[in-house]
Amino acid sequence: MSARSGVPTATIKFYLREKLLPPGERVSATQAAYGEDHLRRLRLVRALIQVGRMPVATAREVLAAVDDESLDQHSRLGVATWALPGPAPVQGEERDEESLETARRDVGALLERLGWYECEPGTPAYDTLVEAVAALVRLGYPCDIPHLARYAHAAADVAETDLELLRGLENATEQVEAGVALTVLYEPVLLSLRRLAQAEESSRRFGTPPRERPAP
Amino acid sequence: MSARSGVPTATIKFYLREKLLPPGERVSATQAAYGEDHLRRLRLVRALIQVGRMPVATAREVLAAVDDESLDQHSRLGVATWALPGPAPVQGEERDEESLETARRDVGALLERLGWYECEPGTPAYDTLVEAVAALVRLGYPCDIPHLARYAHAAADVAETDLELLRGLENATEQVEAGVALTVLYEPVLLSLRRLAQAEESSRRFGTPPRERPAP
Repeated sequence: MSARSGVPTATIKFYLREKLLPPGERVSATQAAYGEDHLRRLRLVRALIQVGRMPVATAREVLAAVDDESLDQHSRLGVATWALPGPAPVQGEERDEESLETARRDVGALLERLGWYECEPGTPAYDTLVEAVAALVRLGYPCDIPHLARYAHAAADVAETDLELLRGLENATEQVEAGVALTVLYEPVLLSLRRLAQAEESSRRFGTPPRERPAP
Repeated sequence: MSARSGVPTATIKFYLREKLLPPGERVSATQAAYGEDHLRRLRLVRALIQVGRMPVATAREVLAAVDDESLDQHSRLGVATWALPGPAPVQGEERDEESLETARRDVGALLERLGWYECEPGTPAYDTLVEAVAALVRLGYPCDIPHLARYAHAAADVAETDLELLRGLENATEQVEAGVALTVLYEPVLLSLRRLAQAEESSRRFGTPPRERPAP
């Protein structure tokens, strides 16, 4: 498994010990056989721990949700991504009830306007959104509902692409595993693309003089 | 200043000592006067340090770029956002030259296809993008150029909204300050909106049976 995945043997043993990977099929006193399912699970564990920097205990919770076959696929994906740590929650030191109240009202109005009824207060993504909007309100930066709705439409395009990427996969478990991994792995991709796009947009609006561009 | 901003006096004194805020105009032996510029700067410092969790030294670099009036506005905004820490860089432990090489080629081809010529290798956003794509390549998750281009188009919509939010502001310094703050403050907003949008999209594709929805 180490040779096929490029992951050091010691790391794989650690994952086995921590029950992040199921044991292989024992073929002798000292050897076990690992199949495609193990390799697929291994790369999900790498995505969560190495790229997503998740503590082992959190990764274990996410994997338990991935494996819960009592749920339908939408719920498995939902529960597994809920178990992911939220996107950098805002520090609490200066939260104040007033800006939180405004943010709760704005987020409610936004989701109403979008017709997004899947997410309710108490889920990590919802609560992080409220905290993040409250920070904007508290500091007095713009975050009116029409602009938030524009961001939400861009997010919907992203989510559509996210789910598109799962289409070629064979079965529900594979799709749920990849759905979780891609949620984590694409976060730095999306944030860097935003910064690159800002540079393009800023150049268009404020750049002087325009640099010569190669013909398309 | 503490009363108007809600920031404790001790915190403001710390920022003054660390030269994150310029000194006020001295009006007596123990009192100084602070104007609108100070308040605006204070909220930028809060955005960087409290929400963006930036070390003081990094915040000081960002502010130096914001204040560099020798640059045109596009460059000021560019230099200031370059000084922002990249979006969670990928851990290096298992970077390998092969996947990095593939990622460099793919990112180059992507930006060529988009006609984005503002960003070059060596800038933080570009390098983070390469590292993040390399992680996808290494783990064998899908990240072909057509899908990356779809994410990039969504990022362009986001960047357009980002810059729209600056339009109402009075002068170049104010715009640069807000541009930097909004880059940081909207990251958790965008990532949470993506998770909420995924829940909607996943419900549409995999949810059974559809829940009853209120009429729009």
